Order: sequence, then C-alpha cells, then structure tokens
Amino acid sequence: MSSSLFDSAFESDPAFPLHKGGKIEIRPTVRVRDDAGLALAYTPGVGRVSSAIAVDPSLADDYTWRSNVVAVVTDGTAVLGLGDLGPVAALPVMEGKALLFKEFGGVDAVPICLSTRDPDEIIETVVRIAPSFGGINLEDISAPRCFEIERRLQALLDIPVFHDDQHGTAIVVLAALHNAARVTGRELGDLRIVVSGAGAAGVAVSQIILEAGVGDVAVGDSKGIVYSGRGDLTDVKRGLAARTNRAGLTGSIEEALAGADVFIGVSAGTVSEEAVASMAPGAIVFALANPEPEIHPVMARRHAAVVATGRSDFPNQINNVLAFPGVFKGALSVRASRITEGMKVAAATALADVVGDRLDADHVIPSVFDPMVAPSVAAAVAAAARREGVARR
Amino acid sequence: MSSSLFDSAFESDPAFPLHKGGKIEIRPTVRVRDDAGLALAYTPGVGRVSSAIAVDPSLADDYTWRSNVVAVVTDGTAVLGLGDLGPVAALPVMEGKALLFKEFGGVDAVPICLSTRDPDEIIETVVRIAPSFGGINLEDISAPRCFEIERRLQALLDIPVFHDDQHGTAIVVLAALHNAARVTGRELGDLRIVVSGAGAAGVAVSQIILEAGVGDVAVGDSKGIVYSGRGDLTDVKRGLAARTNRAGLTGSIEEALAGADVFIGVSAGTVSEEAVASMAPGAIVFALANPEPEIHPVMARRHAAVVATGRSDFPNQINNVLAFPGVFKGALSVRASRITEGMKVAAATALADVVGDRLDADHVIPSVFDPMVAPSVAAAVAAAARREGVARR
Repeated sequence: MSSSLFDSAFESDPAFPLHKGGKIEIRPTVRVRDDAGLALAYTPGVGRVSSAIAVDPSLADDYTWRSNVVAVVTDGTAVLGLGDLGPVAALPVMEGKALLFKEFGGVDAVPICLSTRDPDEIIETVVRIAPSFGGINLEDISAPRCFEIERRLQALLDIPVFHDDQHGTAIVVLAALHNAARVTGRELGDLRIVVSGAGAAGVAVSQIILEAGVGDVAVGDSKGIVYSGRGDLTDVKRGLAARTNRAGLTGSIEEALAGADVFIGVSAGTVSEEAVASMAPGAIVFALANPEPEIHPVMARRHAAVVATGRSDFPNQINNVLAFPGVFKGALSVRASRITEGMKVAAATALADVVGDRLDADHVIPSVFDPMVAPSVAAAVAAAARREGVARR
Repeated sequence: MSSSLFDSAFESDPAFPLHKGGKIEIRPTVRVRDDAGLALAYTPGVGRVSSAIAVDPSLADDYTWRSNVVAVVTDGTAVLGLGDLGPVAALPVMEGKALLFKEFGGVDAVPICLSTRDPDEIIETVVRIAPSFGGINLEDISAPRCFEIERRLQALLDIPVFHDDQHGTAIVVLAALHNAARVTGRELGDLRIVVSGAGAAGVAVSQIILEAGVGDVAVGDSKGIVYSGRGDLTDVKRGLAARTNRAGLTGSIEEALAGADVFIGVSAGTVSEEAVASMAPGAIVFALANPEPEIHPVMARRHAAVVATGRSDFPNQINNVLAFPGVFKGALSVRASRITEGMKVAAATALADVVGDRLDADHVIPSVFDPMVAPSVAAAVAAAARREGVARR
C-alpha cells in the first residue's frame, strides 16, 4: 500500500488520528421518526415549502439553511504557507475552516475544492453553485489571481464574498495595531509602518491600515520596497505603489525599518535583529510568517515594545479565527449583500475592544478562546452593514 | 412584507415551522478546546495532513470526510412532481434528501443548487467541484437532459454518479416486483409488463426490469405506446423502442393493459378501472404517480392481486429512500468508481429479501423505517462492486 510511506508519521504525529474520517459531518436538525414526519420533512410537505419559495424566493432565507451556510472555496494553489498542493490536499484545511466557522461562529460551512485554477472558470463555477449558499469564503487561492477572482465575484453576486487570507488577516492586524498603539501611547495616524509581503495578506493589510487612517505605509516584497516606477510591478502592486511609500523609499525592507514605528511581516522572509534594533523607540513588531516568524519573538522583544506572531506559544497571537466566524455571522444575520470596508474596520474595532482592561504589551489581542470575540465582531459587523445600507433585514 | 402572502399557509401548515431555518447543519466531529487542539486540527497540524495527501492523494479517503460525502446536485427543473421551480425553490427538497441520506444511511450529503440549466455547464460545474466529494447524486433534473448529463459525468469522473429519480425508483420497483411475482406465484421472465411514463423514472425502470430478465415490456408516454418508427421519438425513446414492445403494440397504454400481468405507472396520467379489470388474472399494479396515483389503490385492488403506490397511507409504499442511502453507503464503503447495473440489481434483490417471512400481497416491500433496509442494501451493493471489479478497497 502506498500509505506505508507515511506509516511512521501516522504513528508518531497526533494530527493524523485526529483527522481520521474528517473533521465535520452533516447532521439533521429535524428528526423523521414515522410516516407523518417523513410526509412533512420530505414529500409531499416539502413540496409546499418549495412552491412557496418559487413564488417568493426570499422565503429561502427562512425555510432553508441558506442564510447560515457559507461555501469555503479553494483551488488549492496557496494552501497555508505550503504553496500549491492542489484541491484534494487542500480539503483538510477547508474542513478545518468549516470546523472553526461552526465552533466559533455558529456558521455552517461547506468545503468546495475546485479542479480548475483558471480565474474565469473559478468565477463561473462559484456563480453557478451560489443559489444554495448565503456567502462565499475564498481560501488559499494564490495572488495575484485571488484579487481579480474576489473583485469579479463581488460584482456578480449579491451575497458576501470574502477572501479570508486577505481580509481576515487584515482585520485582526488592524485590531492588534489599534491596541498596540494604545499601549505605546500613539495615534494610528502618526505611525510609520513597513509591511513585508505584497501577496494576499500584505495587500489587504496595507489597504485596511490606509482605510483606518495610517498615512505613512511602505510595502515591500522579495525585491524590496514597492515604489511607483519600479519595473516589475503587477497591476495590484502598481496600485499599492500609488497609495503608499510617500517618502519615496527604493531600497530593502530592512533599510526601510530604520526609524519606523511598526513592522508587519506577512511574508516568508526574515528580518535581522539589527534591523529591528534600528526602529523607532517603542517599536511594534508583528512577525506573522507561519510557522517561522520573520524574526524570533524573543529576539524582537529585546528591542520592540509590542511583539505579535501567528503562533499560539507566544503572546499576542494574530489568528484569522478571531475574525472570519464573527464577520460572516454578522453579515449573514442581516442578509448583507456584501462585506464593505466599513464592516471590516468595525470588526477590527470591536475585536480590539474585547481586550478591555486586560490591555498591556502582551495582550493587544484577545485569545481565540475568548467567548466574547465572535458575538462582539458579529454585532459590530451587523450594525455597520445597516449603517452602510447593505443589510437586507 | 411579501411573505404576508403566505401567512395563512404558514399558520395552518405544519410543514412550514418544521422547515424553519432549514433541516440540516454542519457539525464538527472533533472539538477544539485549547491552543494544543487548535494546533492539531488547524495550522500547523493540518498542514502535515495536507502535505501527506499532496504526495498520495488516496490518503484523502482516510483523512478527510470525502469518502462519506455526496453532493446532491440539481438545477431545479423537475422538482418532485411540481416541475420547473428553479434552483432556490429546489433547496428544501435537496436538504430533505440530505436529511434522509444521513438519517437512513449515515451518509453526509450537501445540497448544490445550480443557477444554470445548460447540460454542458452542469457537467463542467460538477466536474470542477468533484475533488471534495466521494459521490454525486443528481436530483430533480428534467428528462431527457438528465440522461446525457448522467452518462457524460459517469465517463468524466471516477466516483459514483447516480440520478436518483431514475435509479432509486428503478431499484425499489424491481424489489417490489420480485416480491409481487413471488406472492402471485410467477417468474420475472414470464411477466408481460406495461410501463406508463418514459421520463427519468420510466426509462430507468424499463432498463432495470429488462436487465433483471423480464422479456416482454411495453413503455408508453403521453402519445401512447413507444414503438420503432413512431415519428416523434427522442434518442432515448428510440433506444427504448428497440429493446421493448416485442408484440409491436402501437395503441394507447390502456389498450396495452389488456391481458398484461403488470402495470407500472411513473407518470402523471390516469388509468381507468376498466383497463385494470382487463389485465390478466392476479395482476400487479404499481401506481406510483405522486401525490395522486394513476388509479386509486382501493379501486385497483378490486381487480389486482398486488397494488403498490408512492403513498405512505396505503400498503406497499414505493419510496426512493428505501434505496439511495444504502446504495451510496455501500458504494462509498468500498470506494466504488461507479454504480453498475449489477450493483443496482443486487440492491433490489437485497431490498426484496428484507421483507422475509412477512411477505404477502400487502407487504411486498419493507417499511422505510425498517432498520435492516439500508445495511442490507449497502452490504449487497458493496459485495456486487467487488464482484464487478469497480471497488477500490
């Protein structure tokens, strides 16, 4: 058997028995115990419900699971930090996402792993399956294709379309940044920030912090700081260049860190201790690369006032699960037609506020197990959807 | 509110409160209670499982829910007997199907309602979403498109593709026919059978009874008996004409019933009492139109030895739920690449045998609540898959 290749991993790694048989199931919410029950839950009773929905399709929000179910859609091209593993290998991650959607947000989520990686085909496939879903969570689709796919799907569908690798990360980073600024006695608008990474997460983080009022942002990729006129820029990076880097930096990310207030790493790169030491006094370092942060948090903490990572074994874990369950719960609860920038900023503010009076340098973001996280985020997102006119109830 | 239109129905019809919020949910099968659990169920632990599957994709059968999950796919063009209600109005029926899949067969099923009714687009969409499913149950797709869609998907995919409106009905009809022949002391091979209906169910019923050895079958549609040379035949009906009607009948269905042993109605038509009275002594009448049988079962029973309907309030209910949960459970349990004619006949034989020594004219088919039904069908289907060389474990 081919599986013998992995026998030693299967025996020694507790992840494998945990994932055996998958991590989610479908469960009936009504029981069918006799002929009368069957005649209501299925034919002929169900036919009366279907006939009513055929006359008034909005009734599907009340009489089906649609208004609480999200498709978690991937093509497997950017699975976690592991890269292009393909759709089948992405399924355990999508199941994990569905598990977290339900466990933390009470939202039903269905993994949909696509055998195409063509953006046009991904878009048309999602449009075709959309009638049975209340929202679309795009996941682990590589940049820059993810930007176009999300943008075009948002234009084609009247339900929330949310690429979590972008916006989930961005919301949690903004929440942590709010609180890190509070801890170090600064205003968001006064910060000079260097973002390392111009993929899905880097672009969305840059967008949301600009949206939140940070004026001085420089973004770098593997070639260094992104600036207008750099020869190798994609459309998305050209857009970033136009809205960031007001100092006109052209060098490396490490050079840009000299005197900067904040480093936000969402790449696979590394940052030297010297570069962190060159930052402004009371610096803020979010080294979010997984599983190896751009700089070890203990080393970073020697020079920075606040350090966050993506890891659970150090303080201040920046984890998307702090955002996506509550964001979708809130959006679905008011039947929002989309998730606006204002709803994302509201989610970040609510998430930051959950920390409350526990706020200090090692607690700029709540624990993922804080039971107030998803309800607070959901309430803020629902209220923002109503304010912004995208709520349908 | 538009829903006020339906207020009286909502108040008086118990189907509506039962369907409120939908009938299924996603449930985690593992719990995430702390950082250690999260690190196993999600990143970084899940990454090791995904990496293993990327090397050996067959591991997805063990370490995801794929090998127990079926997509229930519809375009909403033939919802129950109600016709073309569209994909959103079809969702309550697909949820009901998912409920029955789990309740009766332990199989997870996900409703996928498509916003296209173009056969090419339906086929390519199902192929694209197939990586996350262990099987495809096509549902409520109108004839004759359903035949081509199923045939082409079977050729394109290496997982079971099963149009339940065809084969689920056919399996249960064959099981009941086996037992009705036993009760009336006849052999399948000696029966003269008239099938009313040449849509999805009629075609599949005709195919399976031919496969099971019935030699003399005549099929009728709204224009009368199907015969070679009739001017208006579709490809599928032309194929039927070539393999049926060896007496060369050209008249109406009622004319064909004179002297016939068996009537199988899977249409919306009606049959007169006189026509039933003209059948052979000890006749068998399966009047399966829903909710109104082609002839009232009490009237039919005056002339026929065995009468079955699709209804739960008369003896001998022919209900697809007797077949599809066990058929998929059996096929998935051995990772069958397809569902062969032999597997369907095996399912019918096993289903007939569940009746055991309770067999009489009013008990030619088990109750849908008989707990032995799905396990017996599943075991027979799995064994047949192994015999026929389509099992992968």
